[in-house]
Amino acid sequence: MKKLMNAAKDFVPEYLEGIELAYGDRVRIIGEDRRVLVRAGQGKAGRVAVVTAGGSGHLPVFLGYVGEGMLDGCAVGNVFASPSSENMLHMIKAVNQGAGVLCLYGNYGGDKMNFHMAEELAEFEEIATAEVLVCDDAASRPKEEKEMRRGVAGMVYAFKIAGAAADQGRSLEEVAAVTRRALDNIRTIGVALSPCIVPEVGRETFTIAPDEMELGMGIHGEPGIQVCKMMSADEAAGVMMDRLEEDLPLAPNSEVSVMVNGLGATPLEELLIVYRAVCRRLRRKGVQVFMPHIGEFATSMEMAGCSITVFRLDPELKALLRMPASTPFYTNHNK
Amino acid sequence: MKKLMNAAKDFVPEYLEGIELAYGDRVRIIGEDRRVLVRAGQGKAGRVAVVTAGGSGHLPVFLGYVGEGMLDGCAVGNVFASPSSENMLHMIKAVNQGAGVLCLYGNYGGDKMNFHMAEELAEFEEIATAEVLVCDDAASRPKEEKEMRRGVAGMVYAFKIAGAAADQGRSLEEVAAVTRRALDNIRTIGVALSPCIVPEVGRETFTIAPDEMELGMGIHGEPGIQVCKMMSADEAAGVMMDRLEEDLPLAPNSEVSVMVNGLGATPLEELLIVYRAVCRRLRRKGVQVFMPHIGEFATSMEMAGCSITVFRLDPELKALLRMPASTPFYTNHNK
Repeated sequence: MKKLMNAAKDFVPEYLEGIELAYGDRVRIIGEDRRVLVRAGQGKAGRVAVVTAGGSGHLPVFLGYVGEGMLDGCAVGNVFASPSSENMLHMIKAVNQGAGVLCLYGNYGGDKMNFHMAEELAEFEEIATAEVLVCDDAASRPKEEKEMRRGVAGMVYAFKIAGAAADQGRSLEEVAAVTRRALDNIRTIGVALSPCIVPEVGRETFTIAPDEMELGMGIHGEPGIQVCKMMSADEAAGVMMDRLEEDLPLAPNSEVSVMVNGLGATPLEELLIVYRAVCRRLRRKGVQVFMPHIGEFATSMEMAGCSITVFRLDPELKALLRMPASTPFYTNHNK
Repeated sequence: MKKLMNAAKDFVPEYLEGIELAYGDRVRIIGEDRRVLVRAGQGKAGRVAVVTAGGSGHLPVFLGYVGEGMLDGCAVGNVFASPSSENMLHMIKAVNQGAGVLCLYGNYGGDKMNFHMAEELAEFEEIATAEVLVCDDAASRPKEEKEMRRGVAGMVYAFKIAGAAADQGRSLEEVAAVTRRALDNIRTIGVALSPCIVPEVGRETFTIAPDEMELGMGIHGEPGIQVCKMMSADEAAGVMMDRLEEDLPLAPNSEVSVMVNGLGATPLEELLIVYRAVCRRLRRKGVQVFMPHIGEFATSMEMAGCSITVFRLDPELKALLRMPASTPFYTNHNK
């Protein structure tokens, strides 16, 4: 295992300390075991707070999006493992500004169980909570079971929309509703070319032949829908977009945002080649792309591969997407 | 070779097309063979223009920094190969706003030869040029031969300083002088854990044993100063910082910016663990870190490893570093 790390057990606390050392003017770590990241400074009274939680190994997801215009807090688990309900509760209490807390997170068993417990305890303390699950991975279940799909890179768009809606002073119910509506219009599919290595395990999470790629693989190495021979970038983008558009039809003259997300080891050049294929296809159909996101937004350690997310916009969602945001790993200052 | 690409010969034109499709409101491609990227729109009359050039395979270096507050243009070569002098000349003519053009680029033979030819031809056409070479790689030559060192990630800081100085309306000589002064205070060293693959070659550029890392390796796989057994992140950071500080002494109470740059396949978590070690060491010495840069700034395709850059600041350099910048892959909106 070739990793720039110290003891595997210190992997999470040390990268968190690195975040705080680098961006301590904008975020800070709280909690007895120092596993909760919140925005530095006092939140705005009466503003809905937006929080998430999840395992480590996906940076910038999740905690890289804590900051202005996106998340107020994130509870952090070990690599690919859920954080505790105690930390989720501690976070909810820390960020609440009297207007309630939206818990916005990926649809994974551990996170769900722990968040439910934390939300229940928060309600006892008279903190209103609402919950929106991210289930954007179109490959993880058929359309008919879309509430059971996993949450992947599309959650970054959801963080953006929820944070912007909260900044507009909307109520907890309104922030939850518009975030749900955004997610109804967001789909993602990924393709993996190589496995990754969890530090405490020390070996590859799965194997994949040198001439094969896996379509629809999850960000923890969950099995995909098809192992296929290596395709060209154009072919892979075509297969992925076919799948996304089957799930989320795109009308001519409509507008979307597209995220081409690197899973960890794939060079930016390759992501741009994939984006080129996606953009040309959409233009041929008369679909316009607004604010493309190309880079590493939701990774799986050093996995090679990428995901494509399509976010179907309408005027309200577009306006929220373009509102300002500034976090350690996401900046948007549209004029 | 597992890459998300189409034909190897189309690798560069296709990723460039991807850049233009994604960021066409901010940058555009010019030139007969479409290998020059310039800022969209007309430059400010009387402002010094800043340009660079270099081979592909290092994104966001070089062309990801074309935009507001940094570069006006970039000539693009094939993977790890210099662009032509014709394209450099075409770029110089395209971006000149009457105040001259600073050619700011890494110290590599091909780029140097071609830029010299282009600058000479530009002078014939009465366009004033100045040249600043980036030689920040402390491992590539001993201190006594520092003008012969290679240029690596430190060039991103140089782009930032030059662009900011040009934005302040300084003259060509002044922009060149302050950029040179910045580079006198910038040193980088890298460590490689795995090789990369050039698309048109199709095999790894070098080999490195599963339990070894190479200190001081260049971003094209140039040999480093030492092949050593895998070290912990803290040990590696220590060895690298020893080397940098020997070259660039840091006084207590001084201020630096630090870049921990991923070479391609190294997860952000690991870069943060390295940053933690660097920051703790500097703090122990009473050295403050301003505007840390952690992420992928200058890569080598899918190489695993990182580089550390130290930029020793004074009030003028600090002010230039914090000025606004907005390019497809670099955003700075300090308040």
